[in-house]
Amino acid sequence: MGLPCLPWALLRLAFCAACLGCAQGGKLLVIPMDGSHWLSMREVVQELSRRGHESVVVAPELSMHIREGPSYTLRTYPVTFSKDRFHELMHNNSQKIFESEPLLKRIFVVIAAMKTFTDMHWSFCSELVYNEELMESLEEAEYDAVLTDPAIPCGAIVAQYLSIPAVYFLRGIPCGLDAEGTQCPNPPSYVPRLATENSDRMTFLERVKNVLYPLPQNAVCLMLFSPFARLASELLQRDLSIVDVLSHGSVWLLRTDFLLEYPKPVMPNMVFIGGINCASNKQLPQEFEAYVNASGEHGVVVFSLGSMVSEIPMAKAMEIAEALGTIPQTVLWRYTGKPPSNLAKNTKLVKWLPQNDLLAHPKARAFITHAGSHGIYEGICNGVPMVLMPLFGDQMDNAKRMESRGAGVILNVLDMTSSDLSKALKTVINDKSYKENIMRLSALHKDRPIDPLNLAVFWVEFVMRHKGAPHLRAAAHDLNWIQYHSLDVIAFLLAIVLTVVLIIVKSCKFCFRKCFGKKGKAKKSTKPKSH
Amino acid sequence: MGLPCLPWALLRLAFCAACLGCAQGGKLLVIPMDGSHWLSMREVVQELSRRGHESVVVAPELSMHIREGPSYTLRTYPVTFSKDRFHELMHNNSQKIFESEPLLKRIFVVIAAMKTFTDMHWSFCSELVYNEELMESLEEAEYDAVLTDPAIPCGAIVAQYLSIPAVYFLRGIPCGLDAEGTQCPNPPSYVPRLATENSDRMTFLERVKNVLYPLPQNAVCLMLFSPFARLASELLQRDLSIVDVLSHGSVWLLRTDFLLEYPKPVMPNMVFIGGINCASNKQLPQEFEAYVNASGEHGVVVFSLGSMVSEIPMAKAMEIAEALGTIPQTVLWRYTGKPPSNLAKNTKLVKWLPQNDLLAHPKARAFITHAGSHGIYEGICNGVPMVLMPLFGDQMDNAKRMESRGAGVILNVLDMTSSDLSKALKTVINDKSYKENIMRLSALHKDRPIDPLNLAVFWVEFVMRHKGAPHLRAAAHDLNWIQYHSLDVIAFLLAIVLTVVLIIVKSCKFCFRKCFGKKGKAKKSTKPKSH
Repeated sequence: MGLPCLPWALLRLAFCAACLGCAQGGKLLVIPMDGSHWLSMREVVQELSRRGHESVVVAPELSMHIREGPSYTLRTYPVTFSKDRFHELMHNNSQKIFESEPLLKRIFVVIAAMKTFTDMHWSFCSELVYNEELMESLEEAEYDAVLTDPAIPCGAIVAQYLSIPAVYFLRGIPCGLDAEGTQCPNPPSYVPRLATENSDRMTFLERVKNVLYPLPQNAVCLMLFSPFARLASELLQRDLSIVDVLSHGSVWLLRTDFLLEYPKPVMPNMVFIGGINCASNKQLPQEFEAYVNASGEHGVVVFSLGSMVSEIPMAKAMEIAEALGTIPQTVLWRYTGKPPSNLAKNTKLVKWLPQNDLLAHPKARAFITHAGSHGIYEGICNGVPMVLMPLFGDQMDNAKRMESRGAGVILNVLDMTSSDLSKALKTVINDKSYKENIMRLSALHKDRPIDPLNLAVFWVEFVMRHKGAPHLRAAAHDLNWIQYHSLDVIAFLLAIVLTVVLIIVKSCKFCFRKCFGKKGKAKKSTKPKSH
Repeated sequence: MGLPCLPWALLRLAFCAACLGCAQGGKLLVIPMDGSHWLSMREVVQELSRRGHESVVVAPELSMHIREGPSYTLRTYPVTFSKDRFHELMHNNSQKIFESEPLLKRIFVVIAAMKTFTDMHWSFCSELVYNEELMESLEEAEYDAVLTDPAIPCGAIVAQYLSIPAVYFLRGIPCGLDAEGTQCPNPPSYVPRLATENSDRMTFLERVKNVLYPLPQNAVCLMLFSPFARLASELLQRDLSIVDVLSHGSVWLLRTDFLLEYPKPVMPNMVFIGGINCASNKQLPQEFEAYVNASGEHGVVVFSLGSMVSEIPMAKAMEIAEALGTIPQTVLWRYTGKPPSNLAKNTKLVKWLPQNDLLAHPKARAFITHAGSHGIYEGICNGVPMVLMPLFGDQMDNAKRMESRGAGVILNVLDMTSSDLSKALKTVINDKSYKENIMRLSALHKDRPIDPLNLAVFWVEFVMRHKGAPHLRAAAHDLNWIQYHSLDVIAFLLAIVLTVVLIIVKSCKFCFRKCFGKKGKAKKSTKPKSH
């Protein structure tokens, strides 16, 4: 049973006719985050362009993926950061992941890398907001809205400075800053915290872990984000915390849904657009079509560790190559480094691959992924079981969620042996339950009243049309911690209760003394007389 | 600026093609609540029928509005409750509203009326669940889902007993039972409570009121709902609270949105379908078309106090009639009682009126309403300023929300004079700000990616297709109060901290004694020697 499609769309069409002033174009300022974050945001900008809106993308002149495009105007601004250092940072961070270090050292290395990364973005940001000419021209352009990824909160600062409503487009912000920015309740008793690998059903000790893990993380976040809060305070001439900066968002478009996340409280201005990056499939380029067709009945395995990691140390690469040679499938491996000498015939190295389109092919049998949210959704959308090799950030949590749903097998990329990988691949390909589970997730994920790209575009347009969405903004933003938790009310009521109890006790004592005290005294005073 | 409509619908169409097994029909069991609650639920049942699903509506043989219809099969069951008493109750309750009594007596009268009302529904419910023949046939029919209004939780009990997933369709349940049933956080610091007339921005004393008001309300709710919990426990042979009964709902379709409600936390299985009753307009019947056309440039005022109240005491009716005579508009008044003798020429009494279709007419100038949620949404949808005469339940809160948004004027139906009503009508009709404000609300309300009727139908079908929506059910349902609030974790961590502090203090004391204690003792013991 299901829904007949045509009348559905026609009914929507009829309702749509009621919408406001159809077909006029708006002006959107886009301040994206680099890397894969931009790649999925670009889809929205492209769709907005098709729908007649004009977008200006503002980015530093140093960038990995932000290039000129036909759907928007790119305005880059000069930065003092060295180009060589930029490329070194981008390259080095991905190399460091594969260095085998003791856990504590590894943690400090990761924190140092994050600090370098956010410091660089902070310097880009201050060079944007203090670029008077650019900022003046942005002010004059009178944009209807700002579209930005607040994981680097520069766009949020600019939006607040220019008094333009902002639409946030993000996977999330660490340390629960997304929850704070929306005033969304986030109970640690069933909402697992970053890097805990907890599910939503925790034992007592897991719940203890869930409360403790955020403490050091919050300290790191404070270090990473407070420079942005200071920049915002300087610029806006008033004291702002990072939560104040983030809370400027009118609508939060979150690249996730409840197939990946566990169900938890949300706020009315949070919109879930998980899978936005895999809503549409294109025809495979000839080269890949040929690979897939030649793979025969065994089909193909798609292997990519994401846009940040395209090379790995040779020893690890050889181990992986050995494992890939043990399966009958053709493996398409995105790899830009020196080819391992033991590469088997079934393994094709490519500098780039159309990941989503390959996974959409019926011959895709498995997906080896670093478990970034984009890759995970491409696996879910297309129903391809996964071998998950999480590297950093939310990837371990993403991987755990897929494993717990029986849709993939996790491997630790540092510790795994060649035979571990071979075994994992054979498991997800040959054990039918993996395919069944990922197909079930895929069916649930796709069964929604409106696809994520159009939903995202709708809300960007909504904010542009109505100059924000104040009716979706919780009044909790105006309460302090004590007020929010009603602690002042509780204290007040307790004080009243205590006062009343005290008065009653005192009155009773007084009455008691009046009634019996005198008698006692009388007795006492009469006693000597009687004697 | 806005959205071009056609490509929008086509894109949705393309996505829709991905949906599961289009066009097969499912089987739905509908256990509605009587009154206006059924009237809007019927729209959903009708749409589901158009989409090829088969619905069976189960209702007691005594009913106000639940009749046979072409879109569903009605199965009534016999009840022992007296027919005369049923009609007397329905009639008396509406009459009692207009009796001028001291506040406290009025409160007790209302509570007694609610108790009689729920007791009657409880007896209906027990006559349903213990009707073996009917229950067996319902079990055999193997429905895909139950659609029910859990404000009377009989359908929820039946669904749980038959192990069928349930879709709830409701305005809300008093005492925050809807929040508890979904495990939705509901902070009293900014979420106004029933009958407090608070907004989401409260002073300290309003927040105190917001914490105190629910206390007696909860006691009343316990009295009203615990018979249903006992019935469920008896039937299911295990101890169930009313929250356990309610938490069976897979998806909660809430007949509200954030134009009426203040923004607050929601859960992933809560879907907002406010305005579902006014999504489509029909041609006016000839009689009403004639009234409207004859109204000239002044237009019409629509007056109805809802499906429960069609008669009012004569003195009040005459006061109202006098006021209605003072405005140049034609007034269409739904009134079944004896016509007041002072009825002016401009006032037409009708036994029934097509409320939404009249309000949709461009000549509708104002709407006199009891501020029930259906009426409020018909006012919002069609952008008609309101004179609000709240009578009971959530009506005062609904009215306050409209007044605070500048879209209406509240009158106390008991205290108001003829001139109050006349003044209020003239204000909302002639002061342009009322029309502007309601039009702004209307524009925001209508600007949504999918209309409420289709959204409701989508989610009913979703639950039917997937046999529930467990991926949207929060794990909080499995936690007790202490676990949910992490009080055990906090106690454990505090105990550890205290133990550590204690050990450190003890150790320090011990060390101190070791280092200095002996010297002290030595000094002490040597002192006498030296003397």
